[in-house]
Amino acid sequence: MGRWEPGASGRLREAALALYLEHGFEQTMVADIAERAGVTARTFFRYFADKREVLFDASPELEEKSLAALEAAPATASPLDLVEAALDAAADVIGHNRELARKRHAVIMANAELRERELMKVAHMSAALADGLRRRGIGDTEASLAAETGAAVYRVAFQRWVDAADDLDLRDAVRQSFAQLRTLTATN
Amino acid sequence: MGRWEPGASGRLREAALALYLEHGFEQTMVADIAERAGVTARTFFRYFADKREVLFDASPELEEKSLAALEAAPATASPLDLVEAALDAAADVIGHNRELARKRHAVIMANAELRERELMKVAHMSAALADGLRRRGIGDTEASLAAETGAAVYRVAFQRWVDAADDLDLRDAVRQSFAQLRTLTATN
Repeated sequence: MGRWEPGASGRLREAALALYLEHGFEQTMVADIAERAGVTARTFFRYFADKREVLFDASPELEEKSLAALEAAPATASPLDLVEAALDAAADVIGHNRELARKRHAVIMANAELRERELMKVAHMSAALADGLRRRGIGDTEASLAAETGAAVYRVAFQRWVDAADDLDLRDAVRQSFAQLRTLTATN
Repeated sequence: MGRWEPGASGRLREAALALYLEHGFEQTMVADIAERAGVTARTFFRYFADKREVLFDASPELEEKSLAALEAAPATASPLDLVEAALDAAADVIGHNRELARKRHAVIMANAELRERELMKVAHMSAALADGLRRRGIGDTEASLAAETGAAVYRVAFQRWVDAADDLDLRDAVRQSFAQLRTLTATN
C-alpha cells in the first residue's frame, strides 16, 4: 500500500462512524476500521492517535477558526457579538455535513466516556473563548460569562440542528438561538 | 465501634478532603479516610458508595431543592425567573460553607476524571431543570436554552464565590451574575 492514500482520512472516518454505530464504540478495534476503509492500521495511525480521536480531531481547527473570527471582529463589537462571531465560524466548520455530525453525535451520546470527553472539549473551547475576550480587554467575569453563555447557546442550536427534520443551516440555528437568548433575558 | 456514629459523615468528609488535598485523590484509599476520621471502613461505606461519592453526594439534594423552587415559583415567572429561583435554592444548599466548597473545588480541578464527572453532574442538573421548565409549559428549545444559560451563569458565579477574598454570599453572587447576563445581552 502506498505511503499517500487519497481520501484515506475521510474513508477512515466514515468507516469508524459506521462501525461505532453498528457494533458500539467499545467493541470496535482500529484493525476493523482500517479493514473497512481498505487501508492498514499503520495508515489509520498516520491520521489519528487512537479510535477516540476520530471523533474529536476537528477540535483544534474549530478553536483556531473561532478565535480568529473573534480577533477579526470590529472594535465596536460587544462581548456577546464577539462570541457570536466566534461561534458562527465554528458553525461554518461543523455545519457542512449534517449526516456526519448526526452519526458522530449518536455515537457520543451512546457512550458515557465519550460524553464526558465531549463535555471536556466544550469546556476547553469555552475557556479559550474567554481568554480571547480577555485579550480584547474585556473584564474577567464578563469574559467568562459571555463565553459560557455562548457555549450554552451553541449546544442548544447544535441539538436543534441535529434533530431537525427539515433543511436547517447550523449557522442560522446559532443565530436564532442568540436571538432567542436576547428575548429570554429581555422579558425579565 | 457502635452502629451509630454521631457526626461520622461530616468527619469522613473533612478527612477525605484533607487527604485528597495532601496526597492526591488517586493516592488516597478508603481505609486512610476512615482511619483519619476515627471510624472503620465499614462505617465509610454506610455513608458513601466509594471515595468519589464523598465529593458528589450533595447532587440529589441539590436537584430536589432546585426543582422544588422551580415548581413553587409564581405562574407569572418568566423562564429565566424560574431558572433563577432554582439556582437560588441550589446556592442556598452549597453556600453555607465556603471553606468546604473551596477544598472540594481544588480537589476536583486537580484530577481530570473528577473534572469530567463534575461536568456530567452539571449537564445532568441542567437537563433536569429543562425538564422542570417543560413541565411548566415552556417550549422545548426555550426550556433547554434557559436551563443551559442558567448553568453557565451559575458556574461563573460559583467560581467568583470560590475565588473571592472578601465575604461574598453565593446567592448574591448568583443574583449578580444573572444581572450581568441581562446587561450583556441588552447591550446588543
